[in-house]
Amino acid sequence: MSVFFDDLAIGQTFQGGPLTVTRDDLIAFAERFDPQPQHLSEDLARTSMFGELVASGWHTAALTMRMLVDGASPRVEGGVVGAGIEEIRWPTPVRPGDQLTAESEILDMRPSRSRADRGLIKLKTTTKNQTGAVVQIITANIVVPRRV
Amino acid sequence: MSVFFDDLAIGQTFQGGPLTVTRDDLIAFAERFDPQPQHLSEDLARTSMFGELVASGWHTAALTMRMLVDGASPRVEGGVVGAGIEEIRWPTPVRPGDQLTAESEILDMRPSRSRADRGLIKLKTTTKNQTGAVVQIITANIVVPRRV
Repeated sequence: MSVFFDDLAIGQTFQGGPLTVTRDDLIAFAERFDPQPQHLSEDLARTSMFGELVASGWHTAALTMRMLVDGASPRVEGGVVGAGIEEIRWPTPVRPGDQLTAESEILDMRPSRSRADRGLIKLKTTTKNQTGAVVQIITANIVVPRRV
Repeated sequence: MSVFFDDLAIGQTFQGGPLTVTRDDLIAFAERFDPQPQHLSEDLARTSMFGELVASGWHTAALTMRMLVDGASPRVEGGVVGAGIEEIRWPTPVRPGDQLTAESEILDMRPSRSRADRGLIKLKTTTKNQTGAVVQIITANIVVPRRV
């Protein structure tokens, strides 16, 4: 069941996950997109700013997107289409074997200025690891069709 | 040759790419991280908000990170470590076969408030396709070691 802008309300929350980050996946993502010492091996990471192997923040962002598609965002008609990101923070690194969950909250809603058939919701998504530590906070504006 | 905070200046620019986005890579990324109609096949995309197959914005962000590591950011001692993202926009979709380039500019610099051995640079990275259209703008704060 898809939802429209008109079905949503400020304060609604949505949950997704868990998704486990394996060591192999962490390293494979880094080799492709973020080949830096802290993401490639325990040995190389030891002398990095982190001192240990940690996931690329972009891997955390991509995994969070997967959780958004799978339930951590409203099941919007037309899919989750980002108009833009207002902020991303990574307060705690993601480590090999971490189990992530995501929760989103609608912070704000407004009709589109240019398109009568669309609205925008501001969605804050908090990603946590298995200990409850926040590994990512992202605030995004999502395009949502209106009932016409 | 690695650089330190003290070696950098507001207004410096850095170039990276080109990187080509193949159709197979575009779909493989989406199947894993952003399995939505507009990213999975031409057929499914036709009735989406985009009307054609386009890359996930997170794929564009990840490819831009690769270009940052490979030269589109200063070669900072300790690597490119994001303290956080201030903004991401995706003004034009990335399509199969697009050839991307990235250019970064240091917008601002400040010493860390908490750590005398670190500074922060605000780096704006503009990613363009082969026609010169801007596909992504990202503004990030990057942690940079100071000479001690």
